Amino acid sequence: MPQQLNQGLVSIFTGDGKGKTTAAIGTVVRAAGHGLRAFIVFFMKGEDYVHGEVNALSKLPNVTLASFGQKGWVNKDNVTPEDKERAESALATAREAMLSGNYDLVVLDEVNIALNYKLIKLDELVKLINDRPQNVELILTGRYAEPRLVQMADLVTEMLMIKHPLSRGIKARRGVDY
Amino acid sequence: MPQQLNQGLVSIFTGDGKGKTTAAIGTVVRAAGHGLRAFIVFFMKGEDYVHGEVNALSKLPNVTLASFGQKGWVNKDNVTPEDKERAESALATAREAMLSGNYDLVVLDEVNIALNYKLIKLDELVKLINDRPQNVELILTGRYAEPRLVQMADLVTEMLMIKHPLSRGIKARRGVDY
Repeated sequence: MPQQLNQGLVSIFTGDGKGKTTAAIGTVVRAAGHGLRAFIVFFMKGEDYVHGEVNALSKLPNVTLASFGQKGWVNKDNVTPEDKERAESALATAREAMLSGNYDLVVLDEVNIALNYKLIKLDELVKLINDRPQNVELILTGRYAEPRLVQMADLVTEMLMIKHPLSRGIKARRGVDY
Repeated sequence: MPQQLNQGLVSIFTGDGKGKTTAAIGTVVRAAGHGLRAFIVFFMKGEDYVHGEVNALSKLPNVTLASFGQKGWVNKDNVTPEDKERAESALATAREAMLSGNYDLVVLDEVNIALNYKLIKLDELVKLINDRPQNVELILTGRYAEPRLVQMADLVTEMLMIKHPLSRGIKARRGVDY
């Protein structure tokens, strides 16, 4: 059972399909099961939205979560100064966790969206990635991954929507979809 | 907090990219956090392989796991009768869990591979899906999803490998990759 990673990587889960955040969370579960310590920063989702994840993951040792979203989703066409402040706090928290020596894995959930909505600056995220200690794994999730980040990442997976039930009128279901 | 799903769906995570099993596990974590009950059947992976997942998930209430793989991976070109027996047991176990009324979510991990390796019969998997109670969610994972299953599923996501570190010589790392 590893107590520490020899080599952390930078992974991105992007695309319009399901499974980006859940893949990150599944990776955290696996890591926790091997004795690694993980920190998940939710950039866009509020406490209510991630209630299920927080509820379950808080039962695991070595998993810490922090959510910076509000109820509801940020309106891309009407970003408020508070939206930016929250996203910047999320980025600062992720950076601190990454540099603290207390975590082997840091998840930046929906950070790609935060960037796409211009809530945070690309340069600051690039700097965070560049400052990553070698033994820390970073996972970035969210649609619209910036090409510059894709270039910097070691591993990039695009979740591609092949078939989606919402297109035939089924609503997202609490407990499974969110 | 839902105690039961009104409508379960059939989801498939397929493709050559990362995140299929981890997305299924992340969905289980979310579901468990909402009080739903989940059963994960590992068709191809043995106990050693899923040690981390089992270790962490067994700390959650309402999550049950069963693994039917052996140490190492089945050799596609030299499938043994025992390989088939194990996969058939996995399918029977998944079916029983699905019909028991004790689970809201059943994950058939790597079932697509089991089918592709001809360890189980397509007709039997089709029958399982057709016999699904309306309030049970099924998640099928693995590369090479059969077109017939894709047709039957409500939600299909292809994990597409955009960039993979193994292609530049980095080995899979215990704790994160498996």
